[in-house]
Formats: sequence, C-alpha cells, structure tokens
Amino acid sequence: MEHPVEWITGAVTAPRGFQAAGVECGVKSRGKDLALIVSNVSATVAGMFTTNRAAAPCVRYSRHVVEAGVARAIVANSGNANAATGEEGFVDNVRMAQKVAQLLECPPAQVVTASTGIIGHRLPIERVEAGIEQAIRQLSPEGGDAAAEAIMTTDTVPKAEALRLLLPEGEVRIGGIAKGAGMIAPNLATMLCFLTTDAQISRSSLQQVLRDSVERSFHCLTIDSDTSTNDMVVILANGQSGVDVNRYLDDFELALESLCVRLAQRIARDGEGATKLVEIEVRGAPTFTQARRMAKTVAESPLVKTALFGNDPNWGRILAAMGRSGVDFDPDRAHIALQGTLVYAEGKPTTFDAAALHEQLKADMVTIHIDLQQGTEHATVWTCDLSYDYVRINAEYST
Amino acid sequence: MEHPVEWITGAVTAPRGFQAAGVECGVKSRGKDLALIVSNVSATVAGMFTTNRAAAPCVRYSRHVVEAGVARAIVANSGNANAATGEEGFVDNVRMAQKVAQLLECPPAQVVTASTGIIGHRLPIERVEAGIEQAIRQLSPEGGDAAAEAIMTTDTVPKAEALRLLLPEGEVRIGGIAKGAGMIAPNLATMLCFLTTDAQISRSSLQQVLRDSVERSFHCLTIDSDTSTNDMVVILANGQSGVDVNRYLDDFELALESLCVRLAQRIARDGEGATKLVEIEVRGAPTFTQARRMAKTVAESPLVKTALFGNDPNWGRILAAMGRSGVDFDPDRAHIALQGTLVYAEGKPTTFDAAALHEQLKADMVTIHIDLQQGTEHATVWTCDLSYDYVRINAEYST
Repeated sequence: MEHPVEWITGAVTAPRGFQAAGVECGVKSRGKDLALIVSNVSATVAGMFTTNRAAAPCVRYSRHVVEAGVARAIVANSGNANAATGEEGFVDNVRMAQKVAQLLECPPAQVVTASTGIIGHRLPIERVEAGIEQAIRQLSPEGGDAAAEAIMTTDTVPKAEALRLLLPEGEVRIGGIAKGAGMIAPNLATMLCFLTTDAQISRSSLQQVLRDSVERSFHCLTIDSDTSTNDMVVILANGQSGVDVNRYLDDFELALESLCVRLAQRIARDGEGATKLVEIEVRGAPTFTQARRMAKTVAESPLVKTALFGNDPNWGRILAAMGRSGVDFDPDRAHIALQGTLVYAEGKPTTFDAAALHEQLKADMVTIHIDLQQGTEHATVWTCDLSYDYVRINAEYST
Repeated sequence: MEHPVEWITGAVTAPRGFQAAGVECGVKSRGKDLALIVSNVSATVAGMFTTNRAAAPCVRYSRHVVEAGVARAIVANSGNANAATGEEGFVDNVRMAQKVAQLLECPPAQVVTASTGIIGHRLPIERVEAGIEQAIRQLSPEGGDAAAEAIMTTDTVPKAEALRLLLPEGEVRIGGIAKGAGMIAPNLATMLCFLTTDAQISRSSLQQVLRDSVERSFHCLTIDSDTSTNDMVVILANGQSGVDVNRYLDDFELALESLCVRLAQRIARDGEGATKLVEIEVRGAPTFTQARRMAKTVAESPLVKTALFGNDPNWGRILAAMGRSGVDFDPDRAHIALQGTLVYAEGKPTTFDAAALHEQLKADMVTIHIDLQQGTEHATVWTCDLSYDYVRINAEYST
C-alpha cells in the first residue's frame, strides 16, 4: 500500500458524520439488543447477502435498499432472527424500517434492516419499535461500541475496528462492527458486519471494493461450514471527509480489506467453544479460488479441528482434507508446516519433534502453511478448533 | 423387485466358492488385523476407489487390478494405512500382493490389496507376510466373519451381511463385509467394503451394478464429511452358482444395493461417538442428485448433528442447511418432519408438541423427512449425531 493506515478507536462512528446507539429493548432476555447506525446525510450503500435459499425478510428487504443505492441508516436487533416467520415476518420487518424512517424523516427504502437470533418466532415488534425510539434519542458520535454490543448473540466479546487512511488530499476513515457465527440454540449462525466510511466514492466502486474485500476476509472465514439465513455485510459511504477516493481505489480497498480481515479473525477467535484461532494459508496454487477451496476444506474438517483442540500435530488429517478438496495437486511435491515446523514433504512425514510441536500447538493462535509448489497464488482462511464446548453449546436442549 | 431376497449368514463366504480368514499378525497392538478373501477360481472384479488426490499405494495398485478385470483374492490389513509412506510404501504394498500370489500360485496382478489405520508409518511388512502365510493356512468356507473382524479399526462391532436372490434358474448369493469411518488417531477415516457373489455376470455389468449400488448406499453415507486416502469398495464375482444374472440385472442390482445399504447403515450407527443412526430422506426433488446433495448437506451440518445429540427438534438448523445446499427450492412449499411429526410447513413452524418430540428423538434411530414438493425424485442419506465422544476420540493426543 502506498499510503499509510493507522488503527484508531470509535468503531462505526470513527468516520465523520455518523452516529450510533445500542439499547436494550427486551428482545433478548437481557443486555443490549437493538443497534442503530445513522449517517447525518444520505449515504451511498453497498452490500453482500447470504446465498441461503431460506433467506430471512431482512435480507430480502435490505437487498432492495442496496439495489436502490442510497441509505441513511442501519437498524439491527439481536435475540430474534425474524426468519421462518411467514407473511407476518415480512410485515414486522417493514415496520422496523418504517419506524426508523419516520423518526429520521427519510424514506423507509433508505433504511437497512437486520435481525439475528432465534428463528421461527414472531419478532416482538412493539418492543423493537420502542427500542428504535430510545435509540434515536441516544444517537451519538461516540455510539459505535454500544452498537457493536447490541448485535451480539452468543458472541463473548463485541467486535469493532476502525482505521484512517492518510491520502495526499486528507484522511478518510473506515469503521466496522461485526457479530460472529455464534448461535443461540435452537438458532442459526449469523454473521453480520456493518461498515461505515466518510470517503467520497461512487456507488459502483463501493460495491466493487466491498465485494473484493469480502472475498479475502469474510469469505475466508469458516466456523462450522453453516451459512445462515440472515448473513449480511453492508457499508455506508457518506463522503463527509471531503476526500474523493476514486483516484485511490487500490489503497482504499486494501484498507477496507485489512479492516474486514481483522473483524473476521475476531469472529474466528470467538467461535463457539473455540480455544484458539487457526490460520490456514495455501501457497503455490494455480489460482486464488483453488487455494481458498483447499484451505477451506482443511478448515472445515472436523478431524483437523478436533486434532487442533487436542494440540495434535496431525498432518495426516490435513493431507487427507487437501486430497479431497477437489483441487488438483501432487502429494509428493506439497509441503505442510505447523507453527512454522515442516511436518510433511516428499510424500511422507519429516522427522520433526512431535512432543515439542504438541507444546507449540497449545498457543492461542495456530498457523498451518501448505505449499503446493505449482503456482504463484495463495489464500488465507481463518477458523477455530472443535471442542467439547462446541458440542455442549449446540446440543443443549432449548426449543 | 420381482424375485425374492432372503437374508442369510456367512458374510463374504456365503456365496459358493469363496474362502476367507482373519488372523492376528501384530500390526495392531492387539486383535485380528489381517483379512484374506479368496475365490477358488479366478473371479471377475469391479471396484470403486477414493477420489482423494493423496490416495494410498493400495488404492493405486488395486485400481490396476480392477482395470485388468480378473482377481483371485483380496488381502487387507488394519492398524496401518500404508499411506504417505513414500516410495517404500509402494514397495511394501506390492510385497503384500506378491506374497498372496506366490501362495495361491496366481499373478500378483490378480490380488487386490487394502490397508487401513495409522498413516505416515512404514508397514511392518515382515509381520504382514507372516500373517498372510497364517491366513492361507486358515482359509475356510466359514471364514467370512473372521475377515470382517480383521478389518476393524475403531469400529466397535464387525459389519457383515449376506443374502440369496431366488431366480428361476436357481439362487445366487451376495456377501459383504465393511469397516466404518472410524479412525485411530492420528489417522484417517477409511471406509472399506469387500463384496463377493457367486453370480455369473459380465465384467461391464458388474462394474455398472456396483457403481449404481454404491451411488445409493455408500455415497449416501456421511459421518463427518472426511473422505480418506484409502477408501475402496471391491466386488468379486466367481460364477460358481452356475446362474447367469445378465438377464436379471435389475434384480441383481437391487439385491446388491439392499446389501450395501444395510452395511452403510451399520457404519453410520457405529460412527465415532454416535448415539443414534440418523436417516435423512429428501422427496419431491427434481433429480436424485439434487435430493442427495440437500440430504447430505443436512447430514453434514455440525449444528444439525449436535442438535440431534441433544434430542432437540431443531427444524431451523435443518432449514438453514437445506437453504445453503445449493439446491433451488421454495422455502414456503417445503415440509420438514422429524420422527414422522410435521414441524415446518408454509414457511414457518407448525404447532407441534416440542416436549413430546424431544422424548421421541431419544430413540436409537431418528428420521428426518423433507418434501420439497417440486418433483418426483428422492434420496436417502445416513449419518449419526455429533457427540462429546466424537470430540474425545478425535482430540486425544497420540502422534
């Protein structure tokens, strides 16, 4: 990157011209459960949504907002996904948008909605509407962290990042909050990410840089291979920095990607029952897509994930996952390294110190490096281990 | 099926003209670990092998045997997969075949080899060779069950089936043994199945009926989505019944498929840490492939599997897995039933008795029926739940 980036605080309210709030309105049994993010002026909006065929009303509605291209606000509740709720669910979702629109005096079509939590239960819409009124009153340029808290479900920590990109014409800021693939039984994993920036950027460029950033961040994240009905990543760009980034799209994209990668890593580290963050890099691949496909297959292997929970340098399970990934490679040329130690080369294991490596795998971050030695592309994927707690959290009876 | 099938005992030695043995030769720390299946005359052979790119020497070797089309014997050891063992591994594998060939006075190219167990460790080939000598001495027309025992790794029970198909010209028999997707850490899941029949059948028909049978049995089986380096299904047909089945291929195929389905169910029920067998049927799909794809996605969802371990009638996770399966369907038309109780229809949950269903899910077999109501095809997939024991078995450090 030509131009420097500095990490700052403030989450989605770090960029100029944004306010946010996170309030408790009683959808969850306790804690903040309604987040509101508002741009002081109409913003350009871009977004990416779950490909799940059973997408929730909020996803279907917010897709239209993104297609129209302009938004003033994002409203999100946690505790209830408003999914599989029939026609009533669509009506409730529209009421969320209408309430925000009425109070901000903007069209409902400029309000992005999001929900996460239990599915198959009607949203307590009166509580949500009361929460929206409360959130409007509490909107603040320091409200970003409260909003991060209000979208949590089984997340154990809020996830927020912000940065500034120093360009010759001035600085632009990007902020983001996310919630992870945590589930409240009997629910769904939902990944939500809301991003803000004060950059001036065209709508098509915003959509393009978002898509490219997500490809190498959230699309490289896997907790348990389940994709929910409610996933979305949305970005608002309000231009309040006065700095046009269309001349610096590569820099802006790299900055946005860095921020998304940090949020993705935070989500992986906070995966249900996770004891460690696992980073899997595949190098020497013919294409990025093939590298990512192989890395994801390794990342989603329950055998690899349980071995990592047990701190077991089990290169055999990694090799087996690589082999079934559908990516063509030569097992006799491939290298596998764990925590920097080469464990497999020339078609067989190296003579590594298994006991020492077992100790090194007890770290809270584990890296798996795979080199196929047959190309120049690479991809990095983040996941976590599979522990007893994952089973406990997801097996507890609670319908 | 026009012609009746009767289930019998005898495993792979139920068909005429087959002998088998299972002996202990010291590859595993204890128990039988070498199986030998021999046809008294040269048999037609067909087989299907893992698509894993890191296939073991036995897979690469046995593929050639199947391509040549004639075999006298199958030799298999458990306790060591002879995978990721470099050039030496290929030599050891050939020595296995040569030893059997020498004692049977047949070409080594007529001996199918298979290995399952730990990977990345040299096979103790002298022990295996001594075991082969012992097995040859113990060959018996009652040896099928001993062979089933000798291919077990973490399987808790041997898996064998046999049947006779009553045709106008006489009866033909089919026998089979299998081992499941059990692993000995730090190893791989390996699925092995060896089938025998005394039917007279052409080589091309044998390969065809095997492929079709596997499509609807073992290819509908998933424990944890991992495909090993050593998987194979091989069938020997020695014609000793004197009955030509080429006129009754549909009957023969249905009989073979039934036998393979029973073995697949036994494997699922004995999955690592499994507390129950789970059968997932998708009906009303446009194609079999789409039906199976959706059923497999549900079967492989860790969220669904942990819910079933917890006896939780969690239709939401099933719907979410259906949604991300890549199969096009209308969530408002689809039905989901658990243990025969309709839990989801018209885009939302039905008003079912969750407490009663929770009790019913404690059975040792659980059925999930999905009806997409958009076609006439269906597929059934078998799996098991995901329990604490799965994590324990696979996380224990043992490299």
